[in-house]
Parts: sequence; structure tokens; C-alpha cells
Amino acid sequence: MACPPEAYRQRRARLAAGLRRPMVLLSGNAPARDYAANPYPFLASSTYLYFGGPPIENAALVIEPGSDGDEGCELFRQAREPDDLVWLGNVPSDERLAGAAGLGAHRVATTDRLASRPAAGAACCICPPFPEALRWALEAGLQQADNDELLLVVDMRLCKDDHELEAMRRAADVGVEAQLAAMRATQPGRREADVAAALTEVLVAHECTPSFTPIITTAGEVLHATGYSSVLKPGQLVLVDAGAETPTGYTSDMTRTWPVSGEWSDVQRHLYDTVWRAQAEAIAACVPGRRFRDIHDLAAKVICEGLIEAELLRGDPAELTQRYAHTLFFCHGLGHLIGLDVHDMEDFGDLAGYAPGRTRRPEFGNKFLRLDRDLEPGMCVTIEPGVYLNPAIWARDDLVGPLADVVNRPKVDALLKERFGGIRIEETVCILQHGGPEILTETLPNDPDAVAVLAGAA
Amino acid sequence: MACPPEAYRQRRARLAAGLRRPMVLLSGNAPARDYAANPYPFLASSTYLYFGGPPIENAALVIEPGSDGDEGCELFRQAREPDDLVWLGNVPSDERLAGAAGLGAHRVATTDRLASRPAAGAACCICPPFPEALRWALEAGLQQADNDELLLVVDMRLCKDDHELEAMRRAADVGVEAQLAAMRATQPGRREADVAAALTEVLVAHECTPSFTPIITTAGEVLHATGYSSVLKPGQLVLVDAGAETPTGYTSDMTRTWPVSGEWSDVQRHLYDTVWRAQAEAIAACVPGRRFRDIHDLAAKVICEGLIEAELLRGDPAELTQRYAHTLFFCHGLGHLIGLDVHDMEDFGDLAGYAPGRTRRPEFGNKFLRLDRDLEPGMCVTIEPGVYLNPAIWARDDLVGPLADVVNRPKVDALLKERFGGIRIEETVCILQHGGPEILTETLPNDPDAVAVLAGAA
Repeated sequence: MACPPEAYRQRRARLAAGLRRPMVLLSGNAPARDYAANPYPFLASSTYLYFGGPPIENAALVIEPGSDGDEGCELFRQAREPDDLVWLGNVPSDERLAGAAGLGAHRVATTDRLASRPAAGAACCICPPFPEALRWALEAGLQQADNDELLLVVDMRLCKDDHELEAMRRAADVGVEAQLAAMRATQPGRREADVAAALTEVLVAHECTPSFTPIITTAGEVLHATGYSSVLKPGQLVLVDAGAETPTGYTSDMTRTWPVSGEWSDVQRHLYDTVWRAQAEAIAACVPGRRFRDIHDLAAKVICEGLIEAELLRGDPAELTQRYAHTLFFCHGLGHLIGLDVHDMEDFGDLAGYAPGRTRRPEFGNKFLRLDRDLEPGMCVTIEPGVYLNPAIWARDDLVGPLADVVNRPKVDALLKERFGGIRIEETVCILQHGGPEILTETLPNDPDAVAVLAGAA
Repeated sequence: MACPPEAYRQRRARLAAGLRRPMVLLSGNAPARDYAANPYPFLASSTYLYFGGPPIENAALVIEPGSDGDEGCELFRQAREPDDLVWLGNVPSDERLAGAAGLGAHRVATTDRLASRPAAGAACCICPPFPEALRWALEAGLQQADNDELLLVVDMRLCKDDHELEAMRRAADVGVEAQLAAMRATQPGRREADVAAALTEVLVAHECTPSFTPIITTAGEVLHATGYSSVLKPGQLVLVDAGAETPTGYTSDMTRTWPVSGEWSDVQRHLYDTVWRAQAEAIAACVPGRRFRDIHDLAAKVICEGLIEAELLRGDPAELTQRYAHTLFFCHGLGHLIGLDVHDMEDFGDLAGYAPGRTRRPEFGNKFLRLDRDLEPGMCVTIEPGVYLNPAIWARDDLVGPLADVVNRPKVDALLKERFGGIRIEETVCILQHGGPEILTETLPNDPDAVAVLAGAA
């Protein structure tokens, strides 16, 4: 558990004050691979964890309206059969689970009694997307929590308290160590898989899981590239986007890009510097009250400036940004919420990422921005500008045609031909009350010289 | 792909000769963690892979009755939207996919056309247990394949051909390397997580995934122990049960047990030797025509002999075995089928593991045996005897009471008190036409002296 019992009790009491009907939070279960006895690793549902649910499968936390966080709350856990004890070992006692969650010891019951407890139809639930949990919610007559109910949760999870921040720092530290191992494992002739192995080893040694399937690729322009089969060749860039999830469920997310050989080409270095500058300006803008979409647009403008200097675009930076010319090179969003999920609360759609009344802009690139809120102290967000030469974009007339007058196509084509790939730098930051943010990933170098030296040292 | 295109074509033709209605094999998809954009790693459905389906998500392979393996077969793949290409990159061309699968190039279509193809209700399917695949099968009006249809598949997958055996050897080799790394990472004061990290690094470097969540524990008596948080202490045993799944889907599974300090205590060494002898005798018995359940019972008898020598049981070995006294110490099955799944075809229940007309024996211990067939050349099975001191068993009067007269309870209690844990040795073997089996995991030492030296070398 990431927090002291009293913190969980207080969170439940605060939620209960806003509830009009009981809320059931389900822990979920590990989904099966091809057959039931071979599950993926279990990762408990984030909202359930936030309110003090212990990380055990097929459990449920019930919170009644007006509860003080103890009275009116109940934890339902699966009964363990005698044969299960032989195969799976002992489980923590009810007393221990209740104690860690800040519940009275008598508030733990077995899940077979859950269905009879909340009057059918009178309770709502937040349920992870696994068949067993969904079926269970259905059988118990639970309804999906409505948007008002989800917003109560969003309001609480949006800004991290000190306990959560400690857990976020821990997740960041493990991620940083893993990224450093990845840099040091880079060497011409080795493969992406060798880099992935070095990174994964660090995560596992810290009892962490990857917070998402690590992106480790020489094809950085493919934003969610999978597989690690390419050989690392001199002249190429490696992009590593990875993070840790701690046993308490908190996550980190960070990206670095470095040259396989430890040496930057002129154009690689120039575009790295562009991304780095966009990163620095965006981070400096991460202060309370600032609208995240404006910071995205600020980073886009800095990138346009760099693309003009590199003679890939021509024109006025502000005008190019307004025409979204940068989206040909920087097509994703500047960042997202992060916490108990890497894209924190993305299971609620845009309810968390977008402030009430705001919606996604429809244009290519803009529509991928996952966050448009005014920043508040305690919010943790990623800042991850990038520049990519992606053939899938340059093959599309609908995107390139309207911007043909400002694009230096021969130079673009030359970089596509040499498979430039992509560059991204990503930090996780926490907004502070005063001044710039705390950079949770600060100990991981992003200076192009330092990054190159680490990679070249292998 | 693990096999040449022609092998896939022949397999489909053989299946088609037995079909009375079209069969649709679904590849499945990676299940989501808390939100859709963060999936677990994708692992394609085994039967789909066996018949030549490429490892891509949300695809379907249709095989018509009487097909020659090409004509009358079709591969349906998901259409990739322009934005998907930006995020996910290029996919192999239809020509390439068809070529690798042994299909004519024109036999690939997009999945939106699948629903209109097999007349609703006229086709059966084999579908992995993921919501998206299940919903899709439902919407397409597919019916679950019946037992006769599944048995056509079982008959084919039961015995591995030369292509498959090559893939099995590869999976075994990677697993052996990972186990050796685990042994070498063992040192008093380090943690289970350090051993897990060393093992995982090897798997990832070979572009493999774990074939199941590795069991790496000082509590070897917990058969499916999870978590890696314990510190390794001198005097303890470490049990590592792990294997690799190759990118083509073939798996390995092997277990070793070694002393943390590199030195065995007398009782550890004696019980290790007992398990080792049971292992050797069971493997020697793995010849065509031999009933697997009899080999299980043979291993049980050898274990009873060792338990008598250790003064944990008293009486006649044959009689003790008949009374299932060994199940207090060796409560699981001797082994299971292995291939494209670690428990091969366990998604079909006991259809694959149990020959027609045979069912599980009902007693504790016996009921956990996953395999009761007469062995045939090409069958790959695990042989994994063990001896455990499991408190969850010794707390049960229903199990211990009837055997109280043959148990040396004070000695049992002494071992429980010192947390003896458990010992398992597991090999994967392939039944050969003549003589004993090929031991796929043979290069991993199981000699107690060699194992101790490797562990003690750290």
C-alpha cells in the first residue's frame, strides 16, 4: 500500500460526502492468455487502489454515501478454498488487509456475500475491462458509475498528495535507472532486444512491471512501435520510451533518444536541440493556472522555429503554428496526466484529461492531445515534444497538400530516404504551488552530449 | 512463422478433410490493462498459429470442409486506417502474409468482410478468451466448435512434426540459458527479484516472452507462488520454474531447485536425490505405448521409497503409493502436454490431456494430473516430480488423518518449522519412435553437485 491507512479512510470519506448511492470499486483480475491457468500478471484497478483496496484479485470495495471512510465501507474478498491454499499459498489475514486499508477489522467479508449487500440497481461501480469483473458486476446488478460520479473521483485523483508524490518519485527513480541501463547497452551491431533486456532487468530487479510495453526502436517515427528485432546500426537513432509501475501501482513514463554510435550527425543534433528547447520552454510554462493546450501550442511554435532553421519549413513560426504545419513533424500531444495509470484515468475517456466544456480539436495531430486542463498544484503530467520523419504522414495528400507551399519537400524526402526516424524527449513533472514544476525524471540526463557519452560508453 | 508455407497448407488440408462445416480460427487481441491504449503484450491464439495464421491481432483464418489448404481457405485481417499507420507503422503486405501462410495472394481480405462470408450459424470457431474476440464471434454468428471438431485439432497438434520440434528446441535452449542466468544470480542477501531480473533479461534479449509468469521462490512448496520480494537466506532452497515463448509461439517449461548458499543440507540433498531418481525413472519410462498415468504412479512410488529412507513415511512403498501417501509431499501431476501452449490445448479442457473415455481420478493430488494418454512418438510432455513440505496440506485433517499411521509427524513438523519449502526438477521431453525420449532441456544440469556449484559461483 502506498499510503498510511488514515489517508485511505479520509479519501473514502471525501468521496462518500459526494455520493448519492453506494459505489462499488472492483479490483479486477488477471486476464487469461490462451487458457485460464496461464494469466497475464495481475494489475489491480487504479481507482480501487486509490481508495485503499489491497492488490488482490476479484475483490471489491464498497463505499456508502455519507460514510466516514470506515463505517459504511466494506471490503469483499474472494474466499480461498483449501486446495487454493496448497497452490497459491497463504493470503494476508482479514485483519491485516483491513488495517492497511484503514478499515475496522470486521469490515472484511467474502465476495459471495457481495451480491446480497447493495440493493440491486441501487449501487454504481467502476469496473476494469476484464470479462470476469464485468460479468460479476452484471450479476450483482450494479450499474456503471455515471459521469457525475466519475467526476467526484477525477477531482480527487487529479492532484497528487504527498504520499502519492513519494510513490511517483519512486516509480520515476526506477525508470531512470532502467533508461540508463538501456543507454549503456547500446552498441552498433547489438539489437533492440539487447537494449530491451537491459532495461527490463532493472525493472524486474526492483519488483516493478513496465508501466506499458516499452517502446525501444530505431524507427522512432512509429509512435507506438512494437517488437525489438532490428539491429542497431551506426548513424541511426534509438528511441526508448518506457517507465516503471511499482507494486503499489504508481507509474512513470519517460523518453530519451540517442545515437547508436554515440555521435550525432548535424541534422540529428539540430533537431534534437529543437526538441530539447521545446521541452525546456514547455516545462518552464508548467505553472498553476496555465492551460495545458496553450503549452502544447507553445512547444509547437518552438518546433516550427527549429524546422525553419533546419530548412524543412519556411515562413513565419507563429503563422506556421496556426496552420498546424508542425503536425507533419510533431503529430502527437505534448503530454498527458500520469499517476496510478500512465495515462491517468483514461479509462474514464476524456473526463479526466479535458476540463468540463472542453473537447478535442478535430485536426490531425491536435486531436491526439490527451490533456486540456488548467494546471493545478499536485497535477503530474508528462512533457514529451518530438520531431519525426514519418513516411505514413508524407504519403498522405490530405495532410501534406494544404501545406505544400511551406514545406521543403526535397529535404524532407532526403531525410525519409535515409530513414531519419524520430526524436522524442519526455519528462514527468509535478506542478508546484509556486515557480516551475518538480521534474520527477530530472536525474536522467537529457543534454545531448551527456546522452551521447552514455550511449557511446558501451 | 515456425514452419514452411507448404506445411501450413497441408495441415489445413488435413483438417478440412474432417470438417463438416467451415471453421474460423481467431487470432485474438491483446487485452487492455486499465484502459484500452495500454494493452498487455499480444500473444496470438495457438490453434490459429498452428494452421498458419500470422501473429497479427484481430485476424481470422477460415477453413472450408474439403479444402486443399489453399482454395477454400481465407485470411481476414483488420483494415489499418491512415492514422493507425502513423501510430503503429506499416504492416506486412497481403502478399507477404499469404505467402508465409501458404495461401494464394488473393486469399487475404479485410475483416469487415468476414461477417458476410460464412453463412451465419453455418461455421464454428475456436476463439481465445478475450472480450473483443468473443464479441466478434458472436456478431459474426459463429458457433463454438464442438468436441468432435476440437478433437480433429487435438489429433493433429498432439504429436509435433519436425518443424515444430525445431521450434520447441529453440524455446528450450532460451529457457536453459535463462535458468543458468538465474542460478548464477543467486547469492545470500540478494532477493528473489534479482534472480527474476537475470532470468527475464535473457528471455527478452532473445525476443522471447516468459511462457508463463516465472515462479522464482524460496517458498517452493507454494506450487504457483507469485511475487519476488523475499531475501535469499543461507540454508534456503530456491525453486525456479520458468520457460520461454518464442516469437513463433512455441514454449518451454523447466524447473530447477538449488541451495542459496551453494551447499545442500543432508535432508535437502536426500530429498533432492529422491526427486532426481523419480525424474530419471519416469523419463526412462517415456516410450511409445506407455500410459502417462502409470508413469506418474511410478514416480510416486520412487518418491515413497525416498520418503521412507528419510523417515518421513513408514511402510511398504507399493502399499503407500496405493494409499496415495505420497500426495502429502508430491500433490501435483507428473507433467502435461507442451507445445504452442505450455499446457498444450488446455483451452479445450481435458479433451487433449485425457484420452477418450478417461477422466481424472477424484482424490486430492491425483485430480491435479493434467495428462492421461498413451504416449506416442512426437508428443512433447513435461516430467516434473517434486517433494514439498506444505503447511496448507499438513493443516488439513481430511488429508493427513487417514494417513496418520504411516506418517512420522514429529519429523514432518520439524521440517515445516524450519520452512523446508519444496524441491522440483522439471524437464521437457519429446517421445521418440524407439528408445527413450529426447530431453529438450538436457543441457541444463540437474546433477545436484553441478547445480550447487553454479549457484554457489555467484
